[in-house]
Amino acid sequence: MSDSATGQDHGSPAQPQPGPGPAVSRTAPEVLDEAECLQLVASGSLGRLAYNGRFGLTVMPVNYKLHEGSVLFRTAHHSPTDEDLRTGMPGAEYQVAFEVDHINPASRAGWSVLIQGHVHHVDSESERASVLAADLESWAGGEREHFLRVIPTRVTGRRLRPA
Amino acid sequence: MSDSATGQDHGSPAQPQPGPGPAVSRTAPEVLDEAECLQLVASGSLGRLAYNGRFGLTVMPVNYKLHEGSVLFRTAHHSPTDEDLRTGMPGAEYQVAFEVDHINPASRAGWSVLIQGHVHHVDSESERASVLAADLESWAGGEREHFLRVIPTRVTGRRLRPA
Repeated sequence: MSDSATGQDHGSPAQPQPGPGPAVSRTAPEVLDEAECLQLVASGSLGRLAYNGRFGLTVMPVNYKLHEGSVLFRTAHHSPTDEDLRTGMPGAEYQVAFEVDHINPASRAGWSVLIQGHVHHVDSESERASVLAADLESWAGGEREHFLRVIPTRVTGRRLRPA
Repeated sequence: MSDSATGQDHGSPAQPQPGPGPAVSRTAPEVLDEAECLQLVASGSLGRLAYNGRFGLTVMPVNYKLHEGSVLFRTAHHSPTDEDLRTGMPGAEYQVAFEVDHINPASRAGWSVLIQGHVHHVDSESERASVLAADLESWAGGEREHFLRVIPTRVTGRRLRPA
């Protein structure tokens, strides 16, 4: 089944759904493999982080770099995001989703990638030295000295093409 | 506390966090009120829908219209999205989040809005007639004859400005 208003079905392979209807006629979304997905994510700089936070399901734009196979981003120590993304159990990591897309509203062509995984807090000095090498600036103001990484467990993506 | 890599803290009011650091110096994000948020959402056409689906936390791009105070989008009947977003209990509606943003990677200025709420399936003929008037085309191919609405319960947003 193809799915959703932009044909982004991250649950099962996309299938063509021919037939008339008020939707613009288009080719079905193309399923991307994991390597293509990660290449696309590496080419981007802004994604959306989703998690179940203290105020319910939360989605926020985050600037990032793909660094050693994980999505690296920054926040402030003890910020709501930092605290929301800690389970309180040593070694247990928070489940999140990270989405990146690039869709042209005029042509309606583009792609989207969904990374599902867990958040790892960069708390050790040796790992901090490693991620500092990624040279990731935060786009927002204030001190954002805490690094987090989304470690992918499932990577899926689709490409939309004009018919 | 300000929060997250783009200063998008949808949990508590943003506070300035002056001080040096590797982040670009910027003014703190401005908190938007609900009316401003909904105006911005009304000006957009592409957002990201997040929900807890069969494959875990899922985020997907969706083209939409703001229609009578709700976020209207389309999918196919019995698609994974349609089925994931049904609780199976009559009258009980699925909790979701819908995010819209517009951020310029060059200037790092822009805004984001988070709508938290529940999904309402447009199943009655009278309501269907009402949403058809919104003239919402799906950007994806195939028949997408099922309309869904996100009914907001909490609307929050931030504006990022260059320093």
